[in-house]
Amino acid sequence: MAEASRTSEARRDAVFARWVIFSPARSRRPTDLKSHGPANPSPGPDDGAPKPSCPFCLGRESECAPEIFRVPPPDASPPWRIRVIENLFPALRREAAPPAPEDEEPVGAGECAVRGFGFHDVVIETPHHEVRLWDLDAEGVRDVLLAYARRVQQLAEHPAVKYVQVFKNQGASAGASMAHSHSQMLGTPFVPPSVTSRLNCMKEVFERSGKCSLCVVPSKDILVSETHNFSAFVPFAASYPFEIWIVPRQHSSYFHETDQDKVLDLAGLLKSMLHKLCKQLNDPPFNYMIHSAPFGLSSSCLPYTHWFLQIVPQLSVIGGFEMGSGCHINPVFPEDAAKILREIDGSV
Amino acid sequence: MAEASRTSEARRDAVFARWVIFSPARSRRPTDLKSHGPANPSPGPDDGAPKPSCPFCLGRESECAPEIFRVPPPDASPPWRIRVIENLFPALRREAAPPAPEDEEPVGAGECAVRGFGFHDVVIETPHHEVRLWDLDAEGVRDVLLAYARRVQQLAEHPAVKYVQVFKNQGASAGASMAHSHSQMLGTPFVPPSVTSRLNCMKEVFERSGKCSLCVVPSKDILVSETHNFSAFVPFAASYPFEIWIVPRQHSSYFHETDQDKVLDLAGLLKSMLHKLCKQLNDPPFNYMIHSAPFGLSSSCLPYTHWFLQIVPQLSVIGGFEMGSGCHINPVFPEDAAKILREIDGSV
Repeated sequence: MAEASRTSEARRDAVFARWVIFSPARSRRPTDLKSHGPANPSPGPDDGAPKPSCPFCLGRESECAPEIFRVPPPDASPPWRIRVIENLFPALRREAAPPAPEDEEPVGAGECAVRGFGFHDVVIETPHHEVRLWDLDAEGVRDVLLAYARRVQQLAEHPAVKYVQVFKNQGASAGASMAHSHSQMLGTPFVPPSVTSRLNCMKEVFERSGKCSLCVVPSKDILVSETHNFSAFVPFAASYPFEIWIVPRQHSSYFHETDQDKVLDLAGLLKSMLHKLCKQLNDPPFNYMIHSAPFGLSSSCLPYTHWFLQIVPQLSVIGGFEMGSGCHINPVFPEDAAKILREIDGSV
Repeated sequence: MAEASRTSEARRDAVFARWVIFSPARSRRPTDLKSHGPANPSPGPDDGAPKPSCPFCLGRESECAPEIFRVPPPDASPPWRIRVIENLFPALRREAAPPAPEDEEPVGAGECAVRGFGFHDVVIETPHHEVRLWDLDAEGVRDVLLAYARRVQQLAEHPAVKYVQVFKNQGASAGASMAHSHSQMLGTPFVPPSVTSRLNCMKEVFERSGKCSLCVVPSKDILVSETHNFSAFVPFAASYPFEIWIVPRQHSSYFHETDQDKVLDLAGLLKSMLHKLCKQLNDPPFNYMIHSAPFGLSSSCLPYTHWFLQIVPQLSVIGGFEMGSGCHINPVFPEDAAKILREIDGSV
């Protein structure tokens, strides 16, 4: 087997400038990393009835925090397929006063505190409790992605929102507190730390090489699949085993500016990648995150900012080495993970 | 209760420049965060007999990877109390050729790959299977810390080792694959990402304010305990609930240069903090990490590098927001965590 002959290697990527240690000796075979428990309940036959305790189910709308919009709009028939609502337990509060620019000035030795202003919203991806995102057809997944984009656009218009982090937690051990399929987004009054380091790294690469780190075509051995508009690949310095990035092939800074046709293309690819991970890794808990550009970026930064979607199955434990150093140990070489993922049928 | 009246706040620290969101609404009371399961087996009566399956136990030395040194030295009586050995499944390999300086030059768009050279060692903290680090007396904990320092000093003399990350994983969900009390260290041929960002942040603070971020005296409301040489406090922008930093009160760049008397003082404080966390949070899994300076730092960097030890109990799940943004959501304000930790008796 190819992976048996590999020895340890350290790699640094060109997007986050993070070192990762690839150490295949620490797991016997890449496929040993399957998820152990059924972290995600298998979808049973969905009789359409709401689950007694789930406020995200059809007919339980009044138990949720206020709705922002639904798809299709109210009074349409059939009833809603997607609802975007406020989070009942928001980490940041829309009713708080936004921080004034001078609030962000460091005090004393550089520490800084601002009021917890921001937006924390939830996207309910389906009215049916047992349906998973990748059970929807491509048009259904497209509509979820379009709901993200529409809500990000609304938040972008708020002068105090600097960034929106769109993410999905699937499975309790990946951070999901509700089993009903949903995503979340947080609009923050600051640019988060990983966004700052990503931009700094991509700027440095651009200044040295004249290239956007993500416009470079991924090599065939890490590619999983590609469509007319997107590439799905295991990144060269993946921090996590079987991590996948879906990247637009044309340079583009902002996810929410992607046009409808491309979003349908992305939806098909995302559905296929989630299906591959589920089949190969025993329905693992996972997270996905959309990495876009902060709002109000000066036009000189646009040539090196390129949005992408990162999918991370939860297969390994983060220990003190990773927490302390920021350097992950990944037992599966990207080339091996990509080969395995290429070989699985991603169609549902 | 003080914490009931708090509302969300975002804080940025002066060591890593990381934003953290404090959102007390997401947990009812700080003490709701106790660890759920007995992640660490309670120490039963230790009859001194080795456990049948544990190669770290007294008398099973031949089943381990090679020993580097032991305390006291071989042929001494009584037999060993601490052994420093090679990791049987090392993430980096001492027999690999060290990377040449030109290997680290970025290729193409800024990616980089080097051979997996490095050192991955284990410190067995006690010959007895059921003894936890904080069950040792202060002199016993001191000797473990001195073993770290001695091994770091040895690795510092290797020209290709740029950094040593010392860490401890306690409990399976914190990454420990062996229940027998031990710590680890990885000597890396590169400066890890979090070390680079820590130095960049502390440099920036120093250049602006003329102060080392960690020489600033922590305010009384986040202080947990202090000794003649060290302060233990919950950091102003703690990423994790009940996170504790132990910081030398005198400016000092390198952990491994700490003198023996100070190490005894540190040992007593570390033992007391671990005992407090165990008592208050139901014996949680935890990690601790020593954050020191990279080797061969130019003397102009020494005024703003200050080593410290970070203890992180594992009480919350990392989800897509944290993974994507690098910004953590902490349900417990540092002032509340510190008050609770001050009130618990830390003596054993």
